[in-house]
Amino acid sequence: MASNPTLVDALRGGIVESHHRGALAIVDADGGVHTALGDTLRPIFPRSAIKVLQALPLVDSGAADRFGLSDEELALACASHGGEPLHAQTAASMLAKAGQDPDVLECGAHWPYEDAALKSLARSGQAPSALHNNCSGKHAGFVCLGCGLAGGADRRGFLRGYVQAGHPVMQEVTAAIQAATGYDLGRTAVGTDGCSIPTFAIPLQHLAHAFARVGTGVGLRDGHARAARRLRQAVARAPFMVAGTGRFDSRVMQLLGERVFCKVGAEGVYCAALPELGVGVAIKMDDGNNARACEVVMAAVILALVKLADAEHKTLQRLASPVLKNWNGIEVGQLRPAAALRIAARA
Amino acid sequence: MASNPTLVDALRGGIVESHHRGALAIVDADGGVHTALGDTLRPIFPRSAIKVLQALPLVDSGAADRFGLSDEELALACASHGGEPLHAQTAASMLAKAGQDPDVLECGAHWPYEDAALKSLARSGQAPSALHNNCSGKHAGFVCLGCGLAGGADRRGFLRGYVQAGHPVMQEVTAAIQAATGYDLGRTAVGTDGCSIPTFAIPLQHLAHAFARVGTGVGLRDGHARAARRLRQAVARAPFMVAGTGRFDSRVMQLLGERVFCKVGAEGVYCAALPELGVGVAIKMDDGNNARACEVVMAAVILALVKLADAEHKTLQRLASPVLKNWNGIEVGQLRPAAALRIAARA
Repeated sequence: MASNPTLVDALRGGIVESHHRGALAIVDADGGVHTALGDTLRPIFPRSAIKVLQALPLVDSGAADRFGLSDEELALACASHGGEPLHAQTAASMLAKAGQDPDVLECGAHWPYEDAALKSLARSGQAPSALHNNCSGKHAGFVCLGCGLAGGADRRGFLRGYVQAGHPVMQEVTAAIQAATGYDLGRTAVGTDGCSIPTFAIPLQHLAHAFARVGTGVGLRDGHARAARRLRQAVARAPFMVAGTGRFDSRVMQLLGERVFCKVGAEGVYCAALPELGVGVAIKMDDGNNARACEVVMAAVILALVKLADAEHKTLQRLASPVLKNWNGIEVGQLRPAAALRIAARA
Repeated sequence: MASNPTLVDALRGGIVESHHRGALAIVDADGGVHTALGDTLRPIFPRSAIKVLQALPLVDSGAADRFGLSDEELALACASHGGEPLHAQTAASMLAKAGQDPDVLECGAHWPYEDAALKSLARSGQAPSALHNNCSGKHAGFVCLGCGLAGGADRRGFLRGYVQAGHPVMQEVTAAIQAATGYDLGRTAVGTDGCSIPTFAIPLQHLAHAFARVGTGVGLRDGHARAARRLRQAVARAPFMVAGTGRFDSRVMQLLGERVFCKVGAEGVYCAALPELGVGVAIKMDDGNNARACEVVMAAVILALVKLADAEHKTLQRLASPVLKNWNGIEVGQLRPAAALRIAARA
């Protein structure tokens, strides 16, 4: 396996305590490669970073309009949310609009990722449901898409097994990913994602290209281009829905609106569209770290490429070089973009 | 920075999704280097992996005997525990034996790491205290040591600031680390640990050497050799205390008793003594991952070096190649020792 460059250093006591290697691709809508740092041609599993691609058929098929989905609901369809009460309620509302109950969801249940929501749920004595799963909005979107596709048929029966690769819902979703990335998903490795749908291995350059298309509409068929625009607008209007309290994606889009669309995925993946620049960004950290490493990379890329006002610049600088504190609140270290990333981001 | 080899692969869908690089040293009590994989000479922060070294003065000074500390309490002094009720109670008991209250602890408070303990505490409506801090046993040990050192003086006044490098308690602790590792701590980088005490940068070869000494007593002065034996016995008799429910260190020592003493530290550090073989082991993962990567490395090292019965072998194999499941309990991947580690462990 290629040795990717170090993109992020974690400092303590004046030395590098740990470091994170990874690869970064920045590509325009015509497929022109602006940056290829590390191995950007090896297929990687994009995981949740491409939820906006997976939501294209929800809008393009007409299901989103038919069920009257709001900005909040469309943003949640693109989300890896923290399971906060408003997230769970919004997923339930999407299902209700399609006449479905939460038990139709096939994503599995887990405790809310967001700390206060977890403790509040524990305090209430309740167990988590599939609505708290960070993917519940995406799955509620799949259910709405499925209810649209079912036509006059028994919707509940039609939906069963919608997470399987061969189900009409997942075939629509897979076709949208293939069209946007231009990568042959029939000939690549396929894994099972945390929420049980297939995840297809795709090179970073193709993922970045897909996000350039999402940001510009160029190279997408009209329906998908309109859907991408609608979804980006929805997330910009309801950025809390795409992640949650204090989370990177929500904070960045609260600050920058439609100028950036960014989305984290499991195992250290990040994708973004920068519509003003006409480029897409795709990042994969070798070690799968997405708690700290890939956020620093994404913040450094935004800082280098997007024209920012002073206050915006300051916030992004804090996100690119966060201070690490210990249990007593004492500053013990800092994360920072490593040399290879600083040079590539300037180029 | 040197490019360390990949030690652990994380697989999904038949391909390597993420991988973890790191370095591994195995050294005997005379300082003979058996294995040096990757850069084992660069000083790294050992963090909580050396709590057994930090507890040597507690026993050697006579404080442990004076306050009648039990096996459970001595094991907790070496622990990064999950904040389960028994852990918090045992830390409180250590303090009470020295006539001190929990508010003497300077480690800071955090929510229990162990899932059920966290939810149970949340359900009770209580906030966490310093007793739930994973380091509370180590700090209770520092308090007992300090109460011994204080002699007839005002103990509470004497203890204040015990986490500072210049305090008599921390000077005893630092001297024990220096003696065991044979590394000049006056000339190396110093960071602040999560619990606010100093952490000194020490090369893996020196850390492995120290653990060979802990496992054999060779090269330690008599008082420290006796203290090391007493602490290893205590952890072998009360392995739940050193970590907690389902945790690697507790599971391994419940299974293997005094044949292995292993201890995780933050940022992907692991140290172990293998007394039967007369060697010590020290591991540092480049990316600081200690949720999964360094456990696989430690399990692979134990599998390769320690003579195991069939049932023990099976358990260690499961720990060396754990299956990854998603929220629906579906097997989605596996961790496994990478080629470089498999070859080094066989050598």
